[in-house]
Formats: sequence, structure tokens, C-alpha cells
Amino acid sequence: MTSPLRVLVIGGVATGPKAACRLKRLVPEAEVTLIDKDDIISYGACGLPYFVEGLFSDVNTLIQTPVGVERTPMFFEKAKGFQVLTRTEALAIDRESKTVHVKNLDSGEERDMGYDKLVLAMGGHPFRPPIPGIDLKNTWYMTHPRHADSLVKEIEAQGLKKAVLVGAGFIGIEMAEALKERGLDVTVVEMFDQILPGILDKDMATFAAKHLRKKGVKLVLGERVTALRGETQVEGVNTDQQTIEADLALIAVGTRPSDQLAREAGINCAEKGGILINEYCQTNDPDVYAGGDCVVNHYYGGYAGREMFVALGSTANKHGRVIANHIAGQPTPFAGIGMTGIVKAFDFTMARTGLTELQAKTLNLNYETIIWAGPDMPHYYPGHGPLVIKMIASKRDRKLLGVQLAGMGNAAKRLDVAASVILLGGGLDDIANIDFGYAPPYSPPLDPLATCAHVLTNKLDGLADGVSPFESKALIEAGNVVLLDVRTPQEFEEMRLPYDVVHIPLGALRSKANELPKDKDILAFCKVSMRGYEAQRILNAAGFDRVRFIEGGIVGWPFEVKMMKSE
Amino acid sequence: MTSPLRVLVIGGVATGPKAACRLKRLVPEAEVTLIDKDDIISYGACGLPYFVEGLFSDVNTLIQTPVGVERTPMFFEKAKGFQVLTRTEALAIDRESKTVHVKNLDSGEERDMGYDKLVLAMGGHPFRPPIPGIDLKNTWYMTHPRHADSLVKEIEAQGLKKAVLVGAGFIGIEMAEALKERGLDVTVVEMFDQILPGILDKDMATFAAKHLRKKGVKLVLGERVTALRGETQVEGVNTDQQTIEADLALIAVGTRPSDQLAREAGINCAEKGGILINEYCQTNDPDVYAGGDCVVNHYYGGYAGREMFVALGSTANKHGRVIANHIAGQPTPFAGIGMTGIVKAFDFTMARTGLTELQAKTLNLNYETIIWAGPDMPHYYPGHGPLVIKMIASKRDRKLLGVQLAGMGNAAKRLDVAASVILLGGGLDDIANIDFGYAPPYSPPLDPLATCAHVLTNKLDGLADGVSPFESKALIEAGNVVLLDVRTPQEFEEMRLPYDVVHIPLGALRSKANELPKDKDILAFCKVSMRGYEAQRILNAAGFDRVRFIEGGIVGWPFEVKMMKSE
Repeated sequence: MTSPLRVLVIGGVATGPKAACRLKRLVPEAEVTLIDKDDIISYGACGLPYFVEGLFSDVNTLIQTPVGVERTPMFFEKAKGFQVLTRTEALAIDRESKTVHVKNLDSGEERDMGYDKLVLAMGGHPFRPPIPGIDLKNTWYMTHPRHADSLVKEIEAQGLKKAVLVGAGFIGIEMAEALKERGLDVTVVEMFDQILPGILDKDMATFAAKHLRKKGVKLVLGERVTALRGETQVEGVNTDQQTIEADLALIAVGTRPSDQLAREAGINCAEKGGILINEYCQTNDPDVYAGGDCVVNHYYGGYAGREMFVALGSTANKHGRVIANHIAGQPTPFAGIGMTGIVKAFDFTMARTGLTELQAKTLNLNYETIIWAGPDMPHYYPGHGPLVIKMIASKRDRKLLGVQLAGMGNAAKRLDVAASVILLGGGLDDIANIDFGYAPPYSPPLDPLATCAHVLTNKLDGLADGVSPFESKALIEAGNVVLLDVRTPQEFEEMRLPYDVVHIPLGALRSKANELPKDKDILAFCKVSMRGYEAQRILNAAGFDRVRFIEGGIVGWPFEVKMMKSE
Repeated sequence: MTSPLRVLVIGGVATGPKAACRLKRLVPEAEVTLIDKDDIISYGACGLPYFVEGLFSDVNTLIQTPVGVERTPMFFEKAKGFQVLTRTEALAIDRESKTVHVKNLDSGEERDMGYDKLVLAMGGHPFRPPIPGIDLKNTWYMTHPRHADSLVKEIEAQGLKKAVLVGAGFIGIEMAEALKERGLDVTVVEMFDQILPGILDKDMATFAAKHLRKKGVKLVLGERVTALRGETQVEGVNTDQQTIEADLALIAVGTRPSDQLAREAGINCAEKGGILINEYCQTNDPDVYAGGDCVVNHYYGGYAGREMFVALGSTANKHGRVIANHIAGQPTPFAGIGMTGIVKAFDFTMARTGLTELQAKTLNLNYETIIWAGPDMPHYYPGHGPLVIKMIASKRDRKLLGVQLAGMGNAAKRLDVAASVILLGGGLDDIANIDFGYAPPYSPPLDPLATCAHVLTNKLDGLADGVSPFESKALIEAGNVVLLDVRTPQEFEEMRLPYDVVHIPLGALRSKANELPKDKDILAFCKVSMRGYEAQRILNAAGFDRVRFIEGGIVGWPFEVKMMKSE
């Protein structure tokens, strides 16, 4: 009789519990033990900003199942059938003897635990910038229920009022909403000259930043935080250009993979951090698996690139399943990540999947982009909101390379479709052919993603001569461009681009085309530039060569517009 | 010099205007004329129920562009560059001379109009059942702004209070919501024994019907309407089983393709109606195109089947583009339809894409199904709602065959992903690998569609032994099944299945397994049957063979449950 398979899991959030639970369902006789140095495990860290915002009042909700049972060691033992040891730190892995040297953080007792298969799921830790004042009181991170719980308590106890958030990534933006909604004054400082650096292209980030500012969030972009000021507690934040008053600092400048234990045991890691794994989440030691925030991933979109570190709860859960399946002898390869990300800021969504334009450029791909704007539902249906979509496709085969979305409309739906199309290698024609669910409460007759694919196809076919907003602004400010506004008189009276324009409503353009110069560059636009594109085609037909349109029109314009009437 | 291409378009809603507009952008010199026998054109018929509901107050909104410009003949001439003749009926097509004989319905004048390319976009018309009383006053259809406008006016003028809707398809359900929200008493009579026949399988329809009834809509299923009663106006509706009092009847028993003109001109049509077209929307006459509600379509999902009639504004718009592209010499094939449909009923969505189980059975495919229930967002995030998903996959290659969704959660997003996966030939592993956008306001860490694919994979792998709710009910009512409720004591005190059950919370199951019989069939369940599945695995490991779980649990249970506390 063989002894049962011994599986040791290090790490009790997302990947670890997922792997252990699944494994016990697949191989009930396996002896599975999960250890974690913390006293609480299996919490939903992604929910922390929403607890701070006050959308639920008990932080323990994040460690409960949907029916309110707390995921304690007892829960896992009783309901899932494996042992959980909290306050138990793994100090070293001996791969030769297949043991992990662990320490009980309460008793101080140390011992060796044997394994047949080892699962590394230590997660990540927030990067702690090496700047003066980083240890001052009232400095927070936001990756653990303790952080959120103490933040809420101290805001109330101390009456904190002015928050400076360092870093405009996902957590920075979610926390900007959370603290603003709690009534604090919120400033976000970001070293790069855009929000969501590495996630959105600068043009989409600039468009999204406009909305954050409209909601009262102060954005300080392109400034590096050099110190937190204060005697014992935070009184301000110094950047390389200014001092910002603050009584609360939140550091959200990224997560780092907790790979030290693996590194010390000779497990291969990426140079910049993160355990290297194959498609079954195996490390270079086939008996050692790793997943979640302590590993690096590959992009599934078909373009070679370096492994990358992207910490996401969704990926961590997938890894857990892949690991359990492989240990159980039912291997299911992990395809990789789609570089998908989404974040809500108030009533606004920012999202991305696949390659950004910056990445496509860096990879030296032959690509084309479009920026499209329009409503997410028919205009007559209440609650419709605008969406701005940036779509990137290969010129060679018209496959979809990436999509970015921003706006108050339903971006999440189009994001997931784009992620699916990229995974399955689909192109612009495929997007146009998807039979999207159509009814007025959900979508216009042609889904925005399909319409956007149409416009990009038109651009690749040489029919639509669109100019991105950033390029348009540069052309306008360099002079010598005739700006042609083809909106209705009523629209023209409501808001305008803050430049000299020629205003000819589209319906009058055929008869008034002769009023426009053929020897100058014309840049047409309307609310979303559907009519801007039509104006280009009408003028082309009337013999104009030098006519293009501003992609996304006024709705997609990332800079200031001139409101003509007070709202 | 050659004379310009003459294109004649018959029909002014969706396909016709779309084809004409696009064609003028592609071939500005083409002479395009659109005729329609109606006096208003290019209206958003799908919005009619929402006008009746009162979500917007001016029915003309449906013939306006998003910026409020009415789509009149003048609009199309000025802004789009083609001529529109309303009140102009096409009486006959002479394909040999390439002329259409038309009649001006105001002047009575008849004449021939020549064409190089002809576009048939006559749309469809509501089926008018040949029953006594069908011409009584206060009988409505709902396919034209006039219908909606007069319905609203007459409800108010006559104080109509009791509506009987004949047909529980999309329009019937949308109108049930609309009239209920207006305060009317609403009864829907459907000849088939389920709502949305041909759209949802009976199990999903039964689940959805429960919600409609909860909202106060009376459903009379499996009864055929035999007559409308009344002297001059509707006083009631007779079915083959009863008389239902009514002062308003709305007939929504389907649309028929308006293909008579084509048929008479020797254009090939399907036996049951609808013009036959190729992937470029060409008829058997290569100079005659057809699209929209007057044609039949093919399914893009890869299984051979007869052409089918599905009238949808989304498809009509796609056809318009395909027609224009082909006429312009830039052919882009239409992939077909995905049989996607979605309908909102109050705060509830019902949707489907791909094959139903009934279709898969009829096609004699080797398939497996799963019914899954769960929340669309993390339980701690406000506004999350339940979703029930039925997923159908091929046993042979595990490709996705179809998905049906119902619930208060965000079904539309998962529907569109499923439609994309089917178009691109993806399978269950692909769905599990999609990098869905994850943040708490949008999704749980593992998207419901991915989780559902996992469970179906478990079922195909022989791990998860699920029983559909309908089959479960039959097994329970036949006796000899031990129903095992593994929910928490608190859940057990709130609601139950209305049968004798053994209640053992999951956490106690390992220690209490010996209380269960090994010689009887055990059917485990919980709120959504995640724990039901775990119970099956725990009992399997304890030596139980005859144990299965109820798919979808209590949330997905389409029949009555027993509420233990008054809410």
C-alpha cells in the first residue's frame, strides 16, 4: 500500500486555497496542508477600497463565503478537508530532502515539513519606496484587511481630511474614489505623466484623467515623490516640484512578487522578480509549483515578449486550478494572461486588454489604431452613457491586437468580448460578425465594438482618414489647419472646441463645399466624428484631397472644450 | 463616359437606409434612390415598448439621430446624398428590363424606375392570426410608431385597464413590462407551454417565468387563443380552455418576412417564407440584393441546419453594410447569425446564443449540458445579482454549442462573450482561459461564464455528477431519493425545497456521512450547488456511489420553494 500524496501549500490567499480545495476534490486521499505566516487567510483583497468607501461595513465580509461563513482554518478543515496552519512561516525549502523548514510565529517552534508536491503561493507585497518619512504615522498601503480597517478607524478617530495618494495605478484610482466619497480632499501624485501608466496609452489616460478631475480628484502627474514630511506623522508630501499638504499618505506604487523563499531554494526567477513557471505552473523543479502574485506570466496574444509581472486575483485563481489539475494528473495548460485590466472611478470605467499602442510600437509591429466615441445604448433609452474605444489591429492580417476603453457607458462588456477575440485569434471582420445580443436596454443595433471595428477597417481600407486627438491638437496648434465643425447649429451653441472653426452643418456641406479651401488641410469633426467622417467622404467626392477627421470628435476629446452656456 | 451606377432600394427601415448611406460613402457618384410605401422611415422599432412604458415621451425620438435631427427624406438627401421617395409602393419587379413598377400612394400615379442594382429591404410584418374578432377595436400590434403612439393615447383616453398579450416572445415580454409599469393588469397567453418558445429551452424558460409572475404578470401557457370577444371592441380573449377578461389585446405572435414582391419576381424564397441570399446578401439574381427582416439567415456556429427566419435590427444593419460593400466592389462576407437574443423584463434578463438543447437534440449531436447559478459580482459588492446559466458543449471536442442566461445579474456581458466564442469556434478550455476584466464592480475573480465552463468540464470528466432541475424534480417526485441539503443552519431556516430533506451542513458531512444510506440515490444541493457538488465529492470519497447534485441549487430552482420566514 502506497502512502498518500503529501502536498504542502505555502500561502493562504487566492492561489493557495484554490489549489488545495480543487486538489482535495480531485484526489480526496491526498494529505494537503496549507501554511501561512498571517493569522487571517483567504481574504478578498480587491474589495478593500470598497470597504474604505463604506459600501459595506464589516471588513470580515472579505473573509466570508457568499453565505456568510468565515474562511477560518476550521472551515477549510471541515468543509474542504485539508489542514491550515496560520502564523506559520516557511523559512527555507530543501528541495533535495523535499522538506520545508517552518516556524510557528506564536510559539517560536521550528520544524521540517515533508512534501511530495510543493505549491508556492506567497503572493506579493506592496513596494515601499526608499524615501524619507516612509515610516511616519498615517502612512498606509492597501493590500491587507488590516490596512483598510485601520485606515477607516483612523480617518474617523483623527478626523483626517487631506489625503495624498502616491501612484495612479488601479489601487490609487480605486482609493481616490473611496476617499473622495468619504469626503476627504484627494490628491494623486504619479511619477509618469499620465494616470494608469503601463496600462493605458497616454491619449486614453489623458481622456480618463479629465473625468477624474471633474469628480474633484486633484492629479499631479509627472512628479516624483521625494519624501513624506512630518515629525511623527504625515504632514505633507514632497515631490520634485512642490510640497502638498496632507494628513494621510497612501502608497500604491505597485506590487512586488514575494519570491525570496523560492530564489533562495534555487527556483528560477525572472531578473526583475517573479518565479518562472511553465504552462502547468511548474517551476524548474517539477515537484514545485507556483502561482498567483509571486510568479511572472506570459501574454496569450501571440506576440513574443518578455515574461511580465501582473498581479491579479483572477489570474491567481486560474493558477490554483491549473496547479491542482496537474498534480492530480489531469493537466490543463494555462494559456497565459491577456493583459486585461479594468478599474472603476466613480461613474466611469477605464479598461484595457491586449497590447497598447506603446507596446505595439515597442515590438515594432505594423499596426493601425482608431479612437472611436459613441453611446453604449440607443440614445432614446434612459441611462445610456458615452464610451471611448481605442482599437489596435495588425495591418498585415487585421487581427485584433488590443482594445482600451474609457467612459460612463458599459465598457466591461466590450472589454470581455475583446479579450475573447484576442485569445481566439480573431480579427476586425470577426468582431463585425459577432452576433451581439441586441435589445435597447443593452446595446445599439450595431455594438460599439463592431462599429469601432468597422471604422478601423475603413481606415485600413483608405476610406476613413482619421487623426487621433493628440495628433489633431498638434496640427491645430501648429496652425495652417482649417477646423471644420459639421454639427447642428444647436450643438454649436452648446459647446465648441476652443479654436477658430468653420461651422457648416453636415446637411449643408454638399452645397457649401465651395466655401472651403482645397489648398489647406481640413480637419472635420462633430460630436463623435461619425459626421466628421461623412464630411471627409463628401469633400473627397467634391474633389478635396486634404481632408481628414478628428477621431472620437468632441466626446472623445481629451482636452478642454468651451462650454457656451452655463449648465 | 459611363453613366453612374443606379441603385434602387425598396424599404426605408434599417437595412435600406444603412445600405444606401454606406454606398454613397463608398461610391459617391452612384445614383441611389430609396422608396418606401410608408410616410415615415428609418425608425427604431425596437424602442417602441420603451415609449409605451413611458421611458421617453415623444415617439418621434425613434426617428431622430442621437443629436435630435429627424431622419426625413430631406435629411437623407442633404446629409447622406440620396433620394428618398415615401408613400411610394413597389408593385412589381421586372428583372429582365431591370425596372420596378411603382405607385405614388398619394397621387395614384404609376411609373417604372430603372436600376442597375436593386436592394430588397421590405422588412417583415406582424403575423395576424386568422381568428374571430381580430379586427375589433383596441387590438394592437407593436411594430410601427403608429401602433405605440395610438396605444398610449387610447390607454389614456379610454382608461384601458386589462391587457391580454397574445404571444410570449420578445415583444410580448417587453410589452408585458411596459403595460405593467403603466399600471395595467397584464396577462400573457402563449400557445406553447413555456415563454420564449424556440428561444429558450423549457427549463430556462420555466425559471424565467417564475420571475415574471413574481412581478405580477399573469402567464397563461399552453393555451391557444381562439377568438377575441366583443361587439365592436375587445372585451375578452377566448383560449381553448378559458375566457380572459380584457379591454385591450396586443398580438405579438411573430413576424413574417415581406417577401411577396420578390416571390412574384421569381426571386428564390424559402418555403416557409423569406428571401434566400448568399453570404453577400445576393439573391439568385446577382443584381438583386436582399437583407433585413425579409430574408432568411444561416447559423454561423458550424452545424448544418435549415435556413431560419430571425428578425433582428442588429442583423438588418449588418446586411445593409454587406450589401453596400458588395455593390461597391469591396465584398465582405456575412458570417451568418449566432441565434443570439436578449430581452429585459423588469430587473431581469433572459438571453440566449447558439444552439438550445432542444436544437442540439434535434440535430442528433453528442452534447452535454450544465445549469449553473451564482452571483455576477463578489457578494460584498452592492448591486450584485444572481445569474443562472445553461451551457451546452459538444462531447466530442468540447466546443461551445450554446449558452442561455437568466437572472437579475449582468447576463448581457456573458452573452456577448459566448456569442464571440461560438463564432470563433472556441471550446470550454478557451472560456476558462479568457482573461476577463476583473475588478469587484464588474465580476468575481473567476467570471461566471468561466466557472460554468469549469463545472461543465467537471461533468464531462466524470467528476461532477449534476442533475438538471427538471430531472431532479422528476426523481424526487418518483420517490426513493434522499434529498441532502448541505447549507448552513441559518440558510436552512430561511427557505427550503418543499420536500423531505436530510439537512447536514457541508462542514459536518465528513463526520456524519455514516448517517446516510449507501443503497439509495442521494441528491445533494445548496444555495447554488457549489457545496452540493462538494458534498458529492466528499461522499464519493467516503465510498458512496449513488450520489449526485442538483444543478443550480435553490437559486436556479425553477419551481416553488418554501419560504420559512415572512419577508
